[in-house]
Amino acid sequence: DLFSKSLFLAASYTDSSDDEASPRDKTQINSKGSSDFCVKNIKQAEFGRREIEIAEQDMLALIALRKRAQGEKPLAGAKIVGCTHITAQTAVLIETLVALGAQCRWTACNIYSTQNEVASALSEAGVAVFAWKGESEDDFWWCIDRCVNMEDWQPNMILDDGGDLTHWVYKKYTNVFKKIRGIVEESVTGVHRLYQLSKAGKLCVPAMNVNDSVTKQKFDNLYCCRESILDGLKRTTDVMFGGKQVVICGYGEVGKGCCAALKALGAIVYITEIDPICALQACMDGFRVVKLNEVIRQVDVVITCTGNKNVVIREHLDRMKNGCIVCNMGHSNTEIDVTSLRTPELTWERVRSQVDHVIWPDGKRVVLLAEGRLLNLSCSTVPTFVLSITATTQALALIELYNAPEGRYKQDVYLLPKKMDEYVASLHLPSFDAHLTELSDEQAKYLGLNKNGPFKPNYYR
Amino acid sequence: DLFSKSLFLAASYTDSSDDEASPRDKTQINSKGSSDFCVKNIKQAEFGRREIEIAEQDMLALIALRKRAQGEKPLAGAKIVGCTHITAQTAVLIETLVALGAQCRWTACNIYSTQNEVASALSEAGVAVFAWKGESEDDFWWCIDRCVNMEDWQPNMILDDGGDLTHWVYKKYTNVFKKIRGIVEESVTGVHRLYQLSKAGKLCVPAMNVNDSVTKQKFDNLYCCRESILDGLKRTTDVMFGGKQVVICGYGEVGKGCCAALKALGAIVYITEIDPICALQACMDGFRVVKLNEVIRQVDVVITCTGNKNVVIREHLDRMKNGCIVCNMGHSNTEIDVTSLRTPELTWERVRSQVDHVIWPDGKRVVLLAEGRLLNLSCSTVPTFVLSITATTQALALIELYNAPEGRYKQDVYLLPKKMDEYVASLHLPSFDAHLTELSDEQAKYLGLNKNGPFKPNYYR
Amino acid sequence: DLFSKSLFLAASYTDSSDDEASPRDKTQINSKGSSDFCVKNIKQAEFGRREIEIAEQDMLALIALRKRAQGEKPLAGAKIVGCTHITAQTAVLIETLVALGAQCRWTACNIYSTQNEVASALSEAGVAVFAWKGESEDDFWWCIDRCVNMEDWQPNMILDDGGDLTHWVYKKYTNVFKKIRGIVEESVTGVHRLYQLSKAGKLCVPAMNVNDSVTKQKFDNLYCCRESILDGLKRTTDVMFGGKQVVICGYGEVGKGCCAALKALGAIVYITEIDPICALQACMDGFRVVKLNEVIRQVDVVITCTGNKNVVIREHLDRMKNGCIVCNMGHSNTEIDVTSLRTPELTWERVRSQVDHVIWPDGKRVVLLAEGRLLNLSCSTVPTFVLSITATTQALALIELYNAPEGRYKQDVYLLPKKMDEYVASLHLPSFDAHLTELSDEQAKYLGLNKNGPFKPNYYR
Amino acid sequence: DLFSKSLFLAASYTDSSDDEASPRDKTQINSKGSSDFCVKNIKQAEFGRREIEIAEQDMLALIALRKRAQGEKPLAGAKIVGCTHITAQTAVLIETLVALGAQCRWTACNIYSTQNEVASALSEAGVAVFAWKGESEDDFWWCIDRCVNMEDWQPNMILDDGGDLTHWVYKKYTNVFKKIRGIVEESVTGVHRLYQLSKAGKLCVPAMNVNDSVTKQKFDNLYCCRESILDGLKRTTDVMFGGKQVVICGYGEVGKGCCAALKALGAIVYITEIDPICALQACMDGFRVVKLNEVIRQVDVVITCTGNKNVVIREHLDRMKNGCIVCNMGHSNTEIDVTSLRTPELTWERVRSQVDHVIWPDGKRVVLLAEGRLLNLSCSTVPTFVLSITATTQALALIELYNAPEGRYKQDVYLLPKKMDEYVASLHLPSFDAHLTELSDEQAKYLGLNKNGPFKPNYYR
Repeated sequence: DLFSKSLFLAASYTDSSDDEASPRDKTQINSKGSSDFCVKNIKQAEFGRREIEIAEQDMLALIALRKRAQGEKPLAGAKIVGCTHITAQTAVLIETLVALGAQCRWTACNIYSTQNEVASALSEAGVAVFAWKGESEDDFWWCIDRCVNMEDWQPNMILDDGGDLTHWVYKKYTNVFKKIRGIVEESVTGVHRLYQLSKAGKLCVPAMNVNDSVTKQKFDNLYCCRESILDGLKRTTDVMFGGKQVVICGYGEVGKGCCAALKALGAIVYITEIDPICALQACMDGFRVVKLNEVIRQVDVVITCTGNKNVVIREHLDRMKNGCIVCNMGHSNTEIDVTSLRTPELTWERVRSQVDHVIWPDGKRVVLLAEGRLLNLSCSTVPTFVLSITATTQALALIELYNAPEGRYKQDVYLLPKKMDEYVASLHLPSFDAHLTELSDEQAKYLGLNKNGPFKPNYYR
Repeated sequence: DLFSKSLFLAASYTDSSDDEASPRDKTQINSKGSSDFCVKNIKQAEFGRREIEIAEQDMLALIALRKRAQGEKPLAGAKIVGCTHITAQTAVLIETLVALGAQCRWTACNIYSTQNEVASALSEAGVAVFAWKGESEDDFWWCIDRCVNMEDWQPNMILDDGGDLTHWVYKKYTNVFKKIRGIVEESVTGVHRLYQLSKAGKLCVPAMNVNDSVTKQKFDNLYCCRESILDGLKRTTDVMFGGKQVVICGYGEVGKGCCAALKALGAIVYITEIDPICALQACMDGFRVVKLNEVIRQVDVVITCTGNKNVVIREHLDRMKNGCIVCNMGHSNTEIDVTSLRTPELTWERVRSQVDHVIWPDGKRVVLLAEGRLLNLSCSTVPTFVLSITATTQALALIELYNAPEGRYKQDVYLLPKKMDEYVASLHLPSFDAHLTELSDEQAKYLGLNKNGPFKPNYYR
Repeated sequence: DLFSKSLFLAASYTDSSDDEASPRDKTQINSKGSSDFCVKNIKQAEFGRREIEIAEQDMLALIALRKRAQGEKPLAGAKIVGCTHITAQTAVLIETLVALGAQCRWTACNIYSTQNEVASALSEAGVAVFAWKGESEDDFWWCIDRCVNMEDWQPNMILDDGGDLTHWVYKKYTNVFKKIRGIVEESVTGVHRLYQLSKAGKLCVPAMNVNDSVTKQKFDNLYCCRESILDGLKRTTDVMFGGKQVVICGYGEVGKGCCAALKALGAIVYITEIDPICALQACMDGFRVVKLNEVIRQVDVVITCTGNKNVVIREHLDRMKNGCIVCNMGHSNTEIDVTSLRTPELTWERVRSQVDHVIWPDGKRVVLLAEGRLLNLSCSTVPTFVLSITATTQALALIELYNAPEGRYKQDVYLLPKKMDEYVASLHLPSFDAHLTELSDEQAKYLGLNKNGPFKPNYYR
Repeated sequence: DLFSKSLFLAASYTDSSDDEASPRDKTQINSKGSSDFCVKNIKQAEFGRREIEIAEQDMLALIALRKRAQGEKPLAGAKIVGCTHITAQTAVLIETLVALGAQCRWTACNIYSTQNEVASALSEAGVAVFAWKGESEDDFWWCIDRCVNMEDWQPNMILDDGGDLTHWVYKKYTNVFKKIRGIVEESVTGVHRLYQLSKAGKLCVPAMNVNDSVTKQKFDNLYCCRESILDGLKRTTDVMFGGKQVVICGYGEVGKGCCAALKALGAIVYITEIDPICALQACMDGFRVVKLNEVIRQVDVVITCTGNKNVVIREHLDRMKNGCIVCNMGHSNTEIDVTSLRTPELTWERVRSQVDHVIWPDGKRVVLLAEGRLLNLSCSTVPTFVLSITATTQALALIELYNAPEGRYKQDVYLLPKKMDEYVASLHLPSFDAHLTELSDEQAKYLGLNKNGPFKPNYYR
C-alpha cells in the first residue's frame, strides 16, 4: 500500500542514531513524567513535532475534521489500538483521533518503516507508542503485545494495516476481541484475512474494509498513477516521453491513468486488454488495442497494469528492441516474469538504484525497473494529499463503527457507507477552493434524495 | 432515447407522398402475394431496401451476430412482437432476428417516426409491419393490435420501447401475456413502468432492462455527448469554442463528456456539482468547481447535465451577459426554467430553427437552444455506431431470455448479464480493428475467472 | 478566403426577391434623397441594419477601434474605394472606416456573395454601394467602374480582395492610380498579383499584404481549422470521431489544428510530411509519421492539408477501404486528384449536398466531400470572431498607410508592421476578458523594448 | 545551456579520486605511447569508454552521420580545437568529427563539468584532451593554451561554448585566428560576444550561431520544458499536480511547454503576458490571461518563463498563500527578485537540496526552488536526445563552414542554413521510426521547391 512507500522515503531522511542499545533495554520518560511508551530516543521529539506540523499543512481534511467534530467528541470513550506505519502523516491521523476524544496506543506494522522522531513526538505528546526503525521479529510482536496487554485499559476499537494486530488480539486476547466494537482495516492483505475469518464464521466483530472506498480507490489508482508513471520513469531513466511508443497492458483505472499522462506528453500508446468493455473504452479514448506480440518489437516502453500474472514473459522480452524499458504499475510483482531472465546467457547490470540492464548475448539491453515490483512504490513518492484521503477514510470509518446504533453492523466485513465516502471527498474540496452546490428542498424531493446525501447508489463508482 | 432522434432526422429525408388515403383503407400485396402488413406504400420497398443496406455498413456487429449464431438459429421458434421506431437501423435489427430464426411482427412506438420506405421494404421481405408516418392515436393502437391479434400465431417474446405494447398485451391479451417468455425494454419510461408492475406483484414474466447496460450507458452518455455537444452548439450558433468561458452543471458521465470536448478545443470550463465525489473528480481533472452564481455574469455558455430540475432559473438568466448561450444536455427538459422566461417584458425572437433570442428590456439577448429540451436530440445527429450498440444489446437480451434455462430468470426486471454486455462490446471491436488478448489457462486460474468472461463483477461500471 | 464562405452562408438566408428587373434599370433613392448607389432594393434596408447590428456584437474590436480613434479621425480626408464581399461583417468594417473619418464607395468582389439587405442598409446610411447578388460579368465591371468613375471625387486609398478593383484602376484610371496613397489587399491571389506588378516595376503605390499578418494567419489556419474540421465532417457525414483512424497529409498550421482536434476527440491520427522539421514536431506531439501507402488500407478518414497537388491520387483511392471519407482542408482543390475518379467504371452518387459516394465495381464506396474543394469553406461556417480579426487588420492597414510619414513606405508590397499586428491582437483580448501585463520602465530598458511594443522581431511567427 | 546540466549530473556519478596531485604535475602515457593530453587518470579510460558506448545508443543521429558521410570524409584536413563540457555525449560528437576526417584537440568550457573517465577514454583513443574536474582558473587557461599552442599543428576550425577559446585565440594567436575557416558557437553568451566582435568590425572569420537553429530551439524550449517542468517540480517537492492552481508568467515557447504539461495533468493554469499576440494565443489555447496580482493570493505554484527581470517581486511574494511554490524556467535568474527575500524578518530554511522554505513572521512558508535559478537545469535532467540535437547541429555547422565554397560566408555571424537545420531533423527521425514522404518531380515543380529541400523559407519557425 501507499503508506509503506511514504514512510520508506520519509524514513530515509531520518538520521540513524549511533545509539545501538535496544529501546527495550532503555528507560525513558517524557516531560510529563510518563514512561508508557517505547521509542528510539524521546529526545528527538522536537524534530518529530516539526515533521508533524509540516504534514498537517497538507492534511487539512483531518484538521477540518478536528474542528467540525470537536464539540461533540464523537470518539469520547473510544480506546483505539493501532498498527500502521508510523510516519508524520499517521501522526496527524492519531492526533486527530485523540482530538476527537479517543485514547490511543500504537505500534508499527512494518519493522523498517517507523520514523523514530515522529514516534518520539507522539510519545512526548502522551500517545503510548511502541515502535522504532529496525525492530527484530521478536521486537515486532513484543510491541504489539505492549499495546494491548494492559491491566486497567482494554481496547474497544482496532485500526489495522495488514491484519497482524487483529490476528494477535483474536488469538491471544479472545475476551478482549469479543468486546471490540469495530475493526478498520486498510490493506488488501488484511481485508483478505478478514473476509476469510468471516467466511469461517469466526469474525465476531464488525469490520470495515476502507481499502475499497470509491474516493480512496480513485486516488490510489487513477489520479496517483497518472502522475507517478511519469515520475517513476523520469527518476529512473531520464527518458524523454515525446514520440516514444509505449504499450500499456491493462486499461483499468491504473492503466487509464498511465495512458492519459503519457499520451498528454506526446507518447504513442498501445493497449492490450482481455475485457472487451475496457477494450472498447480504450478505442473510444483514442488508443489502438493490440495483442502484445503485434507491437513488442517496435515499442520503447512496456508497462503492466493488469493484476494478472506472466503478462510479459520471456518470449516478449526476447523480442524487445535494444533499450526497451519494462516496468510494472499493477497490483503485484507477478506481471513480468522476471524469473525467466535469471538464466546464464543473460547478464544483469545494475546501473542505478532500481534500474537493471539485462543484456542479451548480442548486446541488446532491456531496462528493467524495480525488478518488476511496483514502480510507483519503488521509484516515486506518494503525495501527502493521497495519504490524507486514506487517513481521513480511516478516521471516518472509526467514527462510524464506534457510533453506529446497535444492529447497523453485524459480524461481517463492510464497505464504507456511501455517505461517509462522500464526506471524505467533501473534506478535501477546500484544498482546491471548490464550492459545492446544495440542493434546494424542491430539487431534493424531485430527485428523491436527502439534501445531505448520499447522492449516488452504493454501487456507484 | 436516441433512437427517436435518428428516426426523426431520417424521416425528414422521406418524401411525403401526396397520396392522402389512409393505409388502413388500402389493399396492398407484396411480391410474394402476402397482404399481412399495413404500410404507406409497398411500392417504395426498393428505396427502403437501399437505406437498409447503407445502415448495414455501419452495423457490422449485427451482421457479425448473424454469421456467428446462424448455424444454431438461437431464436428458432421465437415469435417476437416489436414496438420501436421503424428506421433503417431498426430494420437491420429485425432482419437479424429473422436470420437467427425468429418470426417477427412489428409496429411503431411513435406516430411520427416511421420511415415509410423502410416499413415497405420490411413488408416486402416478409416481416409483418403495421406502421406509417403520421398515424392518428386510433391508428397507433390499431397497429399494435394487428401485431398481436392473430388466430394461429401467438407471440412468445416482446421487444418494446416505451411500454405501450407491453401494456396492451398485459391488459387485452392476459392469456398471451402469461405465456410470454420474456420482455426486452429499452426506454427509461418503459423500464420504470416494468419496475412498477413488478413492485405491484403483477409482472408474471421476466423482463430485461437494456437501458442500463454498461456499454450502452457509456456510449449514450460519455462518448455520444462528447461529440454532440460540439456538434449541437456549432450547428445552432456557429460559436467559436476557443477561449470561451463555459459553465457545465453536473459532472456525471454526460458532464464529463461535454467538459472533455470543450476543454480540448480551448474553452475554459467551470463545473457545478452537488456530489462531493464528482466534485473532487472535477478538481483532479483540472476544472474549477463553483456555484453557478459565482460565474454566471462572466460565462459565454451555460450547459446543464444534471437530471435535476430548475438548475438554471430566472435569477441566473437575468444575470447572464449579452449573447450568453444556454442549453441542456441532461435527461429531461426541466433543467432550465424556460417557463420563467415567458413573461411580458421579455421578447422572444426565433432566429433559426431551434434557436431563440430572449431579449431583455435593456437589449440584452440570451441565446436559448431547443427551448431547453435536449440539445443532442434536437440539434445534432446520433451516429449509427451508437444505435448499433443499442440494437445489438436488444438482440442479445432477446436471445438470452429466450434460451435461458428454466429458473434463471424469475418474474422480475433484470439487467443484462455482464457476460452479454461484454459480448456486445466484443462485437463492436472489429470496427476499430481492435485485437483482444485471451487469458491463458494459468492466468484464468490465477484470476479466478472463466476464460470467456465475465471479466468484471456485475457492479462494475 | 474565409470571407467568401461567410457571405455564402449568410446569403442563403437572404430572400431572393421576385423582382426580376436589373438594379441598373431601376431608379432608387434613399431616405436622405441620395441616389448615388445601386442595390437590389433599398427598401430592405431595415432588415439589413438588424443583421449589421447583430454582427457588431461579435466584432467588438472594430467597435473599440471606433471609440479609441474617434477623437482624432485618423482617416479624415481618406477616400476609400473597396471591393470585397458585401456582408454584415464587411458593413461593420465599412462603417468603422466612416466613423474614423473616411468617405467610402464600395462594390462586390464576387457576383454571388452580396447580401442584398446589407447593401441596402449601407446605401441607406449614405455609403455608395454598387452591388447585388447575382450580377452578370458585365454588371460586375460596371459596378467597379461606378465606384471609381466620379467627376468630383477621386479615391486615394484602395481596399481590395482579389485584385480586380486594383487592376481596373491601374488600367483604366492611370492618373488616379498614381495618386493613390496605399492599397490594402487581403487575398492570396490579389497579393500574388501585387508582387508580380512590383517585380515588373509597375507598382507605383505602396501596398500592404494583410493576408500574411501573424494574427490573421493563426486564426485562419490553426484556430479556425481546429474547429472547422470537426464541424465540416459532422455536418456532412455524422461520423463518430472516437476510435477512428485518420491520416492527415501535412503538419503545417492547418494540419496541426486538424490533428489536435481529432486527437482530442479520440481519433488515432497518422501524419504524412515532406519536411523533416515538421515531421519531427509531429513525432514529439505524439503522432506516427508515415507514408500514405503504409496506412491507406486501414484508415477511416483521409484529410489533405499540404498546399501541394496530387497528394491523394487514384492509386490511393483504389486502396482505401469501404466507407473511407476523403476531404481537403488545404489551400486549393488540387490536393486530391478528383479528376482521376471521373472514369466509366466508377459510379458517382450524390447522397447529400457536398457529399458524393464514389462506388467501385465491387461495391466499395469512398465518401468524397465537397468534390475535393476546401471542406471548411464548403461545409462549415466561419465564426464572426475570425472575420473580425481580418476586418480589424484591414482597417489598421488602411490607417497605417494613410498616415505613414513620407518615405516610410515605398512603391512595394509590405507586411503589416509588427506593432499594428500586435494592436489587432490587443483589440480582441477584451472578448476573452484577458488582461495584459504592462512592462515597467525598468523592465522595458532591461529587454531593450518600447513599453508599447512591438514586443517581438518582425520575423516572429 | 543544457550541456552544462547534463555534465553536472553525469559528473556526480564520477568517483572523485583520492589522488590529490594536479594532472599538470603528472606524466601519463596512453597505450599507444602518446602523452599529448592532460587528464586526471588515463587508467580510467575503460570506464569512460563504457559511458561513451551507452551515450552512443541514444545519439543515433551522429552514428548515422558517421555512416552517411564516411565515404567522403567531409572533414578531411580539418583541424578542430574545441572547448565544451566534456561528457559522454560530447565524446560521441568528437569521435564523430574524427570519423569524418578531422583532427581534434579539446578542452573544457567549465572547471567543474568534466567527466574525468570520459576525458581519459578520449585521450586513450588518441584525441588530445586537456581537462579535468576541479580545474583552477589558471588550469583553465593553461588547458586552453595547450590545445592551441603547438609547433607543427595549427587549428583551422573552432567549436566553442561560451566564447573563451575564441577570445583566447583572437587575442593571443592573431595569426592563427585569421586563418581559421570558421567558428561554431553554441551558447547565448558566446553568440553575443561574436555579434559584438562583428559589430566592432573585428570578426575576420565566418561564424555560425547554432544556438538559434529552429530544431534546437524547439527542443531546448518547447519539448524539453514540457517534460522538465513536471520532473523538476516532482523531484523537489513531490507536489500532486491534479487540481493545483498555477500561474505561468510568459507564454513563449517555454511557457507553452510548461502550460501544456500542467494542463494535461489536471492543473488549472493562468497566464500573464505582455505581448498581445502571445496573450491571444493563450486565450485560444484555453488559458485565462491575467495580471499576476489578480491571482497571486490563490495560486499554488508560480512559474516564470519570461526572459525578463523582476517579474515576481517581494510584493507578490508577500501576498502568496502558505505553501506556494515559486520557481523559474526562463532564461536567467533575474525573473524572481530573490534578493528581496534576504531581509531579517524572513527565515530561510533549506529543506532539501535546491529547496528553501522562506518563512514569514506569521509562519507562512513560500517554497523557493533552486534559489530562483533555472529549475530545469538545477533540478531535472536533460534527455540525451536533446543533447543529440545540439551535437548534430554543431557537427553539421562545422561541415558546412569547412566545405562552403569561397564567398558563401563572409566575416559575419550566420544562422545555420535551413537545409542543414532540416538535415539535423531528418537524422533524428529514425529514432521515432518516422517515414518522410518525398516530393515527386511534378510536385516539387508545382511548389517551386528542390526535392531535397529546403522546404521552408529561412524565416520559418
